[in-house]
Amino acid sequence: MSFVVLPDDKNRAAVSAPGTAPPSSAGSLFQLLRDGVPRTRSDLAAQTGLARSTVSGRVEELLASGLIILAGENSSTGGRPPTTFAFNPGSRCVLAVDLGGTHARIAVTNLAGSILAEEEQELTISLGPVAVLDAVVDIASRMIDQAGRDPENLIGIGVGLPGPVEFATGRPTSPPIMPGWDGYDVPGHLRRTFDVPTLVDNDVNIMALGEHDMVYPNVPHMMFVKIATGIGSGIISDGRLQHGAQGAAGDLGHIAAPGEDRTPCACGNLGCLEAVASGPAIARQLQKSGLDVPSHAALIDLVRAGDLTAIRAVREAGRKVGAVLASCVNMLNPQLIVIGGLVVTAGEHFLAGIRETVYSRSLPLATMHLRIVATQTSGRAGVLGASALVTSYALSPVNVNALLAR
Amino acid sequence: MSFVVLPDDKNRAAVSAPGTAPPSSAGSLFQLLRDGVPRTRSDLAAQTGLARSTVSGRVEELLASGLIILAGENSSTGGRPPTTFAFNPGSRCVLAVDLGGTHARIAVTNLAGSILAEEEQELTISLGPVAVLDAVVDIASRMIDQAGRDPENLIGIGVGLPGPVEFATGRPTSPPIMPGWDGYDVPGHLRRTFDVPTLVDNDVNIMALGEHDMVYPNVPHMMFVKIATGIGSGIISDGRLQHGAQGAAGDLGHIAAPGEDRTPCACGNLGCLEAVASGPAIARQLQKSGLDVPSHAALIDLVRAGDLTAIRAVREAGRKVGAVLASCVNMLNPQLIVIGGLVVTAGEHFLAGIRETVYSRSLPLATMHLRIVATQTSGRAGVLGASALVTSYALSPVNVNALLAR
Repeated sequence: MSFVVLPDDKNRAAVSAPGTAPPSSAGSLFQLLRDGVPRTRSDLAAQTGLARSTVSGRVEELLASGLIILAGENSSTGGRPPTTFAFNPGSRCVLAVDLGGTHARIAVTNLAGSILAEEEQELTISLGPVAVLDAVVDIASRMIDQAGRDPENLIGIGVGLPGPVEFATGRPTSPPIMPGWDGYDVPGHLRRTFDVPTLVDNDVNIMALGEHDMVYPNVPHMMFVKIATGIGSGIISDGRLQHGAQGAAGDLGHIAAPGEDRTPCACGNLGCLEAVASGPAIARQLQKSGLDVPSHAALIDLVRAGDLTAIRAVREAGRKVGAVLASCVNMLNPQLIVIGGLVVTAGEHFLAGIRETVYSRSLPLATMHLRIVATQTSGRAGVLGASALVTSYALSPVNVNALLAR
Repeated sequence: MSFVVLPDDKNRAAVSAPGTAPPSSAGSLFQLLRDGVPRTRSDLAAQTGLARSTVSGRVEELLASGLIILAGENSSTGGRPPTTFAFNPGSRCVLAVDLGGTHARIAVTNLAGSILAEEEQELTISLGPVAVLDAVVDIASRMIDQAGRDPENLIGIGVGLPGPVEFATGRPTSPPIMPGWDGYDVPGHLRRTFDVPTLVDNDVNIMALGEHDMVYPNVPHMMFVKIATGIGSGIISDGRLQHGAQGAAGDLGHIAAPGEDRTPCACGNLGCLEAVASGPAIARQLQKSGLDVPSHAALIDLVRAGDLTAIRAVREAGRKVGAVLASCVNMLNPQLIVIGGLVVTAGEHFLAGIRETVYSRSLPLATMHLRIVATQTSGRAGVLGASALVTSYALSPVNVNALLAR
């Protein structure tokens, strides 16, 4: 028996990534600078404990790579003022790809997640991986060019896919709405054009990361729940995105909803949450009541027009989502649940149904400081999360070394 | 907007802990040695990137503290053979306390979790914190003495309590079966006698840590589920114990069980898993069938004697636990669920009920490599986990420095 050495997962899982040497001093020095605060060589030596000569060498390497820049000179009491160095987020760019069932959103960002170029396009995932990824490569190549960058400037690619992904390999695993994608080597395909680390994750996972990064960086325990054609969630615990053993964590949609509705689900089970509370499920229920609801948009319009049957159906769907979320709250004890996806645009009725059930069914301790809110990133959570996935990987201590060695 | 810097929680949450200075070089040098492999000064300089003089100074400090020892001399091609140094787990001891509803198990371990002394005693948690903790102090003082150690040799105390604990302060939070304990300063009480860092956590959380550490150190995604008078679980994701925002994560017992049974629960809700599938719940159901089941032990005896009514009740309770665990499997995607607690000693019937429901109700991807097994630590998971909690805290980079500075 030995004491626990918990593995550090920050730098794990790199698909098509270079090297896995242990972190060294260049890494730790650069990590210090990532906060954006300018520092002198003396500051860096004092704060890392590295030898002065090591610091100087590393600073030269990082300057040469462009990852840090001269940030000016410190005021001094006399003599030559010491030079300061700071992180340079504009030095490289990231390709961020968010693929949905019928849409793609693609962005080029800098290393701080600022968007340099962005496009949204119709792109049907069921065309299969070759057609879809070739289209992504075409669009991305044009966008990188338009952003005034060169493919050589790319530090990595982040991709969100609408299905389960084995995070360690970047391959989709039995994704129900993605025919032809099962086990496909997504990073391998993209690396034929862009030879950089490529990280692939489930779309709701990267949305959770994007919302966390952009809106709630100081909330370590949160969930992002997407209610649209499907229902899924991304879980952040202790500030980390949770993947689980096969990358299937957060699969809210196929938990059994409470109640009598045993509607068959695409997964093969009966009465899954997705089969009774997703956008299409609500539309189907309204059609049974004689209302014409050909699309999501039509459902939203009915609710906004104050149709009581539609409002009641949306609120009831919210209650079902809330009943399942109540279990999640007891299990995970998050501080915050962010609800995204098209159904939420129907307004407060859906959220009201969720809150009603969660607060009545979860333990007081777990709901004491719990907030349940609508997303604030208006559709951008995915690309922001894809970008964050790449920078937290590519700028980790191990990989900064690999980058400098290239 | 900035890129994500995910917080590192390894060293967080220290109750009554000394200092919070940033990790420095002594820390990183010692972390390297914690794997037990002997290293020379040159090895240490090469592997940490620290200046040779810094390494020598740190080695002297660590030798003086006893945390490392001379491990012998390397064979050399000539000249004076270089000395090697290694971690010395016997240099300090840990007090590990596992308090249940009616029992206490107390152990003294070394820094590698090896048990130097161990006792189990009847101790009723409802006597309140003063009586219980005074008893713990008396027993522990005697045990430390019997183990041939001195209170000065203690590096920290780990305590498991049968209720929710605010991990950051070590105070129980509205614990249902612990009258008088709500908000009580457990670390403060123990530090009056033993002035060392004291970490307090929920008993099932430390059991999860103990089982992980001792039996499954290489399984990063697992749950430990305890089924006894109460029902609870500890979650390990990415190798880390999950606490959630208020330390309430893993509270499986108050999730609504599926089905018609609306038995009132101690928490104020109806039909909670604990109210329909715990040991007392099974006993109550059997009493309705006319069987005399005055205790847990009587229930176990009936099952072992092959009583079909009792076997059926245990299996059905397993199915209910399984239905709730199926949701957890979809949400967390663990590789392993370990079942502990008295009900499991009834044999395979309970586990069979759990497996039956989990495998039929969870997604194929999430159950592909999922194992559901009985605990292998025979009641010791709690003290082993309490010990691991202390060593992973007290031997972290920050705190090793604080230790050396004392």
